[in-house]
Amino acid sequence: MDGQARVGVLRTPHGAIATPAFAVVGTRAAVKALSPDDLRAAGVEVVLANTYHLYLRPGADIVRRLGGLHRFMAWDGPIITDSGGFQAFSLGFGLEHGVGKIASMFPEETGGGHTGGRPSDRGASERPADRPGRKKLAEVDDGGVTFVSHLDGSRHRLTPETSIAVQEALGADIILAFDECTSPLHDHAYTRRALERTHRWARRCLDARTRGDQALYGIVQGGAYRDLREESARFIGGLPFEGFAIGGSLGRSKADMHRVLEWSVPLLPPERSRHLLGIGDIEDLLACVARGIDTFDCVAPTRLARNGALLVSPAAGGSPANRFRLNIRNARHALDGGPVDPACRCATCRGGYSRAYLRHLFQTGELLAYRLATLHNVTFVMDLMDRVRQAIRAGRLEELSREYLAGAHRPA
Amino acid sequence: MDGQARVGVLRTPHGAIATPAFAVVGTRAAVKALSPDDLRAAGVEVVLANTYHLYLRPGADIVRRLGGLHRFMAWDGPIITDSGGFQAFSLGFGLEHGVGKIASMFPEETGGGHTGGRPSDRGASERPADRPGRKKLAEVDDGGVTFVSHLDGSRHRLTPETSIAVQEALGADIILAFDECTSPLHDHAYTRRALERTHRWARRCLDARTRGDQALYGIVQGGAYRDLREESARFIGGLPFEGFAIGGSLGRSKADMHRVLEWSVPLLPPERSRHLLGIGDIEDLLACVARGIDTFDCVAPTRLARNGALLVSPAAGGSPANRFRLNIRNARHALDGGPVDPACRCATCRGGYSRAYLRHLFQTGELLAYRLATLHNVTFVMDLMDRVRQAIRAGRLEELSREYLAGAHRPA
Repeated sequence: MDGQARVGVLRTPHGAIATPAFAVVGTRAAVKALSPDDLRAAGVEVVLANTYHLYLRPGADIVRRLGGLHRFMAWDGPIITDSGGFQAFSLGFGLEHGVGKIASMFPEETGGGHTGGRPSDRGASERPADRPGRKKLAEVDDGGVTFVSHLDGSRHRLTPETSIAVQEALGADIILAFDECTSPLHDHAYTRRALERTHRWARRCLDARTRGDQALYGIVQGGAYRDLREESARFIGGLPFEGFAIGGSLGRSKADMHRVLEWSVPLLPPERSRHLLGIGDIEDLLACVARGIDTFDCVAPTRLARNGALLVSPAAGGSPANRFRLNIRNARHALDGGPVDPACRCATCRGGYSRAYLRHLFQTGELLAYRLATLHNVTFVMDLMDRVRQAIRAGRLEELSREYLAGAHRPA
Repeated sequence: MDGQARVGVLRTPHGAIATPAFAVVGTRAAVKALSPDDLRAAGVEVVLANTYHLYLRPGADIVRRLGGLHRFMAWDGPIITDSGGFQAFSLGFGLEHGVGKIASMFPEETGGGHTGGRPSDRGASERPADRPGRKKLAEVDDGGVTFVSHLDGSRHRLTPETSIAVQEALGADIILAFDECTSPLHDHAYTRRALERTHRWARRCLDARTRGDQALYGIVQGGAYRDLREESARFIGGLPFEGFAIGGSLGRSKADMHRVLEWSVPLLPPERSRHLLGIGDIEDLLACVARGIDTFDCVAPTRLARNGALLVSPAAGGSPANRFRLNIRNARHALDGGPVDPACRCATCRGGYSRAYLRHLFQTGELLAYRLATLHNVTFVMDLMDRVRQAIRAGRLEELSREYLAGAHRPA
């Protein structure tokens, strides 16, 4: 224990997860550009797949008939599935309010979900634009959410019961309750209504489960409102979930996000695990571990990689100022024969691939670029989590955070 | 020796190549979707990269300053570079004559080159359409070819001397003479003029070389005209090249291609090696090995993979009727939990990835699809070449060919 930070082990039917841990996102039963062998080489402990996407394609029944998600994607390690609620809502909500980032999430990976309110999502902190002519693509009622598929316009309905049924068919080790996810655009009154619905749905999810081998996590909502977060943490924390996830809007700044955790986490039963949905920036991982989070998931490491943004340690120029990112497309790498990060043990940095070569692969759009970059970013985050665990055990998390947060401000 | 077929070993500064061998194409210093580790696991012996593409991007001087092509792409095995002539010509010719396939080759992989006249390239056997309003993008004269970059419209010139200089800077183990490549659309008179130019350029390439550690192959041209092929084979075969490549138009049918080889190969010095440019279909590999070819290159296995066309053996339904291809997107694979080809030893077939999962990856456009499919197709061809070598040693090439060519005609 280092402040609120803690180390632990989550035992699942597909192996143990040393926490704090980061779940790599494999929305559609595949981590973009990586195979399960790559995941193992990178030290990945757990993958998060998405119910919404797999429900639509290939369909939960097909996955079940093929032996479940583990066999389907040939990954025998732990898997989490998100409940699908975030995607069903955010599609309707994003299009309705014209929140830019949401619409652009499809058909890109979105599994991490619940990012509508993360501090880095600046687009979501603007005032909603009323677009009365726009067709609403998702409608919520007390029973569930009715939505239109982003793939073919077909109509579907997800409820607490169907979400659990789909997640049981998929067969992940950890599944999530079906919740209504709000954004920073929602006011206190609406956030309260959504919270109450989420609480009723939480009980329904518990009632709906039929399998005994999956851990079901309840989701704490309440936006950036202290009274609602505390109410939700107490309520959800009082239900017989195996773990808890912090979802929904985390406010409009990192300070807001920290406060949300400081209000919620201490009210959750300490013997059960706590997941933070959709957060994965280097600084945020350090800050949120210090506030008692055990597991994370986020598309950031994999999506950044595909955009040529490679994570680098302070030794290689990473710092809060550049968000620990190096833009490999930059012309100054054209003749750089060195690795992305000399301190990194990943297959890309150790495999003789220079910054110049990676730049060439990105400039020419070679498919290999995505795999090499993703291998690097994922390994980078796995190694960071390993350092975090060691630091917590040694009572040195603050020291480790200072090392990253005071990183040299030379360009990466 | 089995008919004209023969086994051998090509020694290069980066290792030996057991022949007959198939060179996987890595046009822009990367085999699409595969890393050098993947290539080694698949049993790849040699990679072919392209001078035209690397000259334009990142530039030969940059590759040289970074230690040459082997270090640049982190592949320490043998490399061949094509001379760049085919691409420079085909771009101009294809746009000029409206030959569909050529234009679509950019910016896709094209390294195998010299495919303008391969029998499978049906587009090229149509009559040329005169398009007088269309700007000519490549102009050939006795000195070389002046062309416009397909990337940014900048003007460039390749000559026998500059092609060799670029290939020396890149540093491949085997380099190719700069030739004028004709298509089935060219008549006897033009094909003769191009042949004579190719012959003059062959001498200039030999004169231009300055490195002693690269094997330089001369290129036999002459289209599908017997007199020209024989003349070219005698002329090029009489020059002090370390090996020979059969380039240009191979006619309009498999029978034409076989005849071109039957005219040319016996006139080449038997102690030196013979490469067939741009051929890689299963049937063609078997037929051309039997006609004395030692090495091949072709984009087919890698490009087919990215299109979801997976190569399958007769045991898995492959036959000449389906060109040994299985369309993994087909709905009938949706619930197929078995591997692509049970007889295949590749990482995809042995890794627990079912036909159903691969179909899902292709249907959803997951990047992992391309790697798993390419690993399979490349391994498939490598294993075929291994069987070919064993068959030749045992005097059983004909038997092996019958096994493939009489493959069961059930759907793959």
